[in-house]
Amino acid sequence: MTSEFELIARHFTPAVPGSRAGVSLGVGDDCALLIPQPGMRLAVSVDTSVAEVHFPAAAPADAIGHRALAVSLSDLAAMGAEARWCLMALAMADADDAWLDDFARGFHGLCAATGTALVGGDVTRGELAIGVTVMGEVPEGEALTRGGSRAGDLLAVTGSLGGGAGGLALWQRGERDLQHPLLVRYLRPLPRLDAGQALRGLANAAIDISDGLLADLGHVMSASGVGARLDVEALPLAEGLLQALGPDRARQAALGGGDDYELLVSLPADAMEEAVRRLAGLGLALTPVGTVTAEPGLSGVADTALHGWQHFGAADAKGGAT
Amino acid sequence: MTSEFELIARHFTPAVPGSRAGVSLGVGDDCALLIPQPGMRLAVSVDTSVAEVHFPAAAPADAIGHRALAVSLSDLAAMGAEARWCLMALAMADADDAWLDDFARGFHGLCAATGTALVGGDVTRGELAIGVTVMGEVPEGEALTRGGSRAGDLLAVTGSLGGGAGGLALWQRGERDLQHPLLVRYLRPLPRLDAGQALRGLANAAIDISDGLLADLGHVMSASGVGARLDVEALPLAEGLLQALGPDRARQAALGGGDDYELLVSLPADAMEEAVRRLAGLGLALTPVGTVTAEPGLSGVADTALHGWQHFGAADAKGGAT
Repeated sequence: MTSEFELIARHFTPAVPGSRAGVSLGVGDDCALLIPQPGMRLAVSVDTSVAEVHFPAAAPADAIGHRALAVSLSDLAAMGAEARWCLMALAMADADDAWLDDFARGFHGLCAATGTALVGGDVTRGELAIGVTVMGEVPEGEALTRGGSRAGDLLAVTGSLGGGAGGLALWQRGERDLQHPLLVRYLRPLPRLDAGQALRGLANAAIDISDGLLADLGHVMSASGVGARLDVEALPLAEGLLQALGPDRARQAALGGGDDYELLVSLPADAMEEAVRRLAGLGLALTPVGTVTAEPGLSGVADTALHGWQHFGAADAKGGAT
Repeated sequence: MTSEFELIARHFTPAVPGSRAGVSLGVGDDCALLIPQPGMRLAVSVDTSVAEVHFPAAAPADAIGHRALAVSLSDLAAMGAEARWCLMALAMADADDAWLDDFARGFHGLCAATGTALVGGDVTRGELAIGVTVMGEVPEGEALTRGGSRAGDLLAVTGSLGGGAGGLALWQRGERDLQHPLLVRYLRPLPRLDAGQALRGLANAAIDISDGLLADLGHVMSASGVGARLDVEALPLAEGLLQALGPDRARQAALGGGDDYELLVSLPADAMEEAVRRLAGLGLALTPVGTVTAEPGLSGVADTALHGWQHFGAADAKGGAT
């Protein structure tokens, strides 16, 4: 095995140009030194992606790199934060140079697309797993949290739902056309960073849909002390999902499949038009899917729809502020 | 297996009192929101500790928790930074409540002792491994780096050397007296945060001794473009090391054993007295061990001493800014 020092130097150092704004000292010392902006809160989160738990080990390496970062960046999006920096902890059984090349390309590509500087990390021997810590900034007092939802708010989701679970189902059936829209959704999710920032000042609460719409709505309800009524017929289904799974499983995927990395937001009814307009400017739909109620609990979803979907990653959980 | 959400709530939420300075929003949302102090650089690093690579899986759980955090905090110490916040990514095969209790106690104990707030993390299923991201602060322009060493400087180390490797050797021989000074050094290293801060304005360069004195001195030499002459007879050996290993292996442990988490600093000769005085105030020795030379390369160490020690964790490497 090549020395990990060499591996790191070869694959992960170029990501930090010395002149990059906000990086005083990048990869190569005991710590990176970063320059926070005045008046901003620092938003931080970590997510670990484990092979065969969170993604198929045989997925394309560049997709694995992209996806591991996307999952973490999605948490910044949900706070309305701008992405700034990340650290990557990579565990792998052995060092395959071609695999690492592809992996790094996927990771760096999303870094570049989102303005995120990779400022450090470590490499250890073990089962393939990628832990990504992300750091972003959001103006003081403007962060979107899970706890601000109010009775009377509308619930809305960005983009479309079920693509993550649908893509995984296709992958498990042997589909390997990486251009298939569902595989793109599953393997290369795009964190909704611009949308999160655009919704600051409009949304009362937000969360990213990683565990599935129902589970994540449950987190918002719990943190905000409210209930919700969902309009299941209104859920925007991912392109190709109905054809791939049929209507019942498609709806279950949209409700409970997870891995969509869209945003679920709660916002006053009179803010919806402006929110739709702002996201349209980003090329992204914002679809009303329900209302927030004062009575606790969820209505509008038949029991049978709640229990039909076994999610690949359901055994694991993100925890705490991540 | 208990839901990971419950596990996290039970074991890791209490670490963040809501009123804690610098934490605007702690565990429980998509991100934590932190309040950086004006005029400070943010120092960040991540280190992953893997069972049977970086520590024995059978070590006491509280020591595993303590040690995983200590290893990361040691990088903040080496920059002269103050510890502020951390995130923990825990992978484990199954959830043993008693083990988690002990693990959390060790982790939280060092959080409390160092003023570090645990603000988030995640739990995944897998081989036991703990990835800890630490964030600290250091006044702008005052960080200690690896690159500032100058010819003519003295080299000095805090505390004593060889305790990490000596403790591991004892553990592998079956020693289980957890009060043995070498086992304390190996299982419960104390990151030299106060010392690192006290050396700001005096030291030209610093690094923490995680890979072994020779390897870490090599990093400083390489980053600073200097050479060094070591006085091997001057190395301060950990308590009990000579008795446990005999003189040859004791010296090898001090030179190459790693896991000591002391600081190696390079400082002008006329700053040594003040540096010793400041560290004495912290109850910590600072021992001159060599000089920095303009000629590259290392002298003062016989070849035989360089190659005698196989370090438990040598196969893995911290990488980049970590």
